[in-house]
Amino acid sequence: MIKTVAIQGVKGSFHHIVTQQFFENAVDSIECLTFDRVVDALITKECDAAIMALENSIAGSIIPNYALIDKFGLHIVGEHYLDIQHNLMALPNQRIEDIEEVYSHPMALLQCKEFFKIHPHIKLVEDKDTAEVAQRIQEQQLKGIGAIASVTAAEIFNLNILAHGIQTIKHNETRFVIIKRTNSEVNQSDINKASIKFEANHKRGSLAAILNVMSDCKLNLTKIQSLPIIETPWKYAFFVDVTFENYKDFQKAKSLIDIMGDGFKVLGEYKNAKL
Amino acid sequence: MIKTVAIQGVKGSFHHIVTQQFFENAVDSIECLTFDRVVDALITKECDAAIMALENSIAGSIIPNYALIDKFGLHIVGEHYLDIQHNLMALPNQRIEDIEEVYSHPMALLQCKEFFKIHPHIKLVEDKDTAEVAQRIQEQQLKGIGAIASVTAAEIFNLNILAHGIQTIKHNETRFVIIKRTNSEVNQSDINKASIKFEANHKRGSLAAILNVMSDCKLNLTKIQSLPIIETPWKYAFFVDVTFENYKDFQKAKSLIDIMGDGFKVLGEYKNAKL
Repeated sequence: MIKTVAIQGVKGSFHHIVTQQFFENAVDSIECLTFDRVVDALITKECDAAIMALENSIAGSIIPNYALIDKFGLHIVGEHYLDIQHNLMALPNQRIEDIEEVYSHPMALLQCKEFFKIHPHIKLVEDKDTAEVAQRIQEQQLKGIGAIASVTAAEIFNLNILAHGIQTIKHNETRFVIIKRTNSEVNQSDINKASIKFEANHKRGSLAAILNVMSDCKLNLTKIQSLPIIETPWKYAFFVDVTFENYKDFQKAKSLIDIMGDGFKVLGEYKNAKL
Repeated sequence: MIKTVAIQGVKGSFHHIVTQQFFENAVDSIECLTFDRVVDALITKECDAAIMALENSIAGSIIPNYALIDKFGLHIVGEHYLDIQHNLMALPNQRIEDIEEVYSHPMALLQCKEFFKIHPHIKLVEDKDTAEVAQRIQEQQLKGIGAIASVTAAEIFNLNILAHGIQTIKHNETRFVIIKRTNSEVNQSDINKASIKFEANHKRGSLAAILNVMSDCKLNLTKIQSLPIIETPWKYAFFVDVTFENYKDFQKAKSLIDIMGDGFKVLGEYKNAKL
């Protein structure tokens, strides 16, 4: 059973909310301020699992996080979707005109860009986490400073929300994955989605050939992303997510792609969170 | 002939460097502080063309810029690759220990993340442009403030480089595109690359079928990126780049994909900058 989970951010962060929604039992969080630290906590066995944001509506894939999973040979064992609502918050009795600087995670700042265009007096400053800024504002009683974070963070750290749902895209869904050191505990009968990586050159049809195999094996593609392999011109890595009804179909596809593509790797086999 | 070009940033910015390298004749730059403003300058005919960064080694595709080209029906008429070298700069006689805050474009801050981990006393602040911060430091004689920008920017604004090449990935290539209101002036015999968009559902094989057509028509795929269509669950938009030797092959593929995929659109036909 998973008891301890590394998250990016502190209590009230979106990663923390994912731990509350995803796991059936209560889990302890290890609060990390970078994704590198999240991975480090997992590798050094400080925790049983870790949560990582992988893609969102406005910025697309968070490529560096794919790279971390790939580089350290970690396994995706589950996924969870969260509709991210960003809120501008500050100490009670502060008005929006009083706010001079807003600190938040770079992705939150990017997602709320349009809102701050109409409040040009506010300076935006990158920080490690959304909720950690809320915590700091309360602990140090910082006036003139705002945080962008969840309603939960405002409640935990007793801040006043000056503006709700300030993200540009109102339905702002982020996909999180649950990662572990091994894939051993996922029940095979639950598996109906997988994330894989393979390499192919830009020669005509090499990707099409692999996608044909997937199609023949009854896999549905739900995501594809090519990335140039920096050291090798004209060669590409593809990160692909597929869903399937029967695990045996996926096993068959794995054997075939392993022969056809270079650098084939399964990043995770897990239960599809969208049904 | 292209005479006036909208760029994101001021003189010394990476977009400005692209205008100097790409066009044979000297062009005037319209300095814009957002990509929205770049597109606006093009639509309102303040300029003949615009430059836009579209993807880079560390963050992958810059999805919002794809969306701008798509939304406003603009055309990619050329591409240019630039090896982005970021440098930390400040007023002369400032040491790195004196720098309290560094202002730069969010993408530059992201690309230099590792460098600043070993200088934790420096606060990172998001700004509109790389070179514009260099300009401001010089004009307002700002001590304790650093910019992350090009060597050209340091030269133009007479700043001292405290650290060269501070980006995490040393070979940090960014792909820029040249966009116009119409595609009319690209010489057909020069065209050997195209950017297209189409939609497909997650039904088994629908993407594979379109890629097969591309392969049959002798197109090489150099990039593929799926994006969920937010309003339509289970339907995806694909942004694909292809190269080809014979324009007639591409024409044939266009007719076929137009029948097979929904929402087919050519975002641009242009000359491949990588040979």
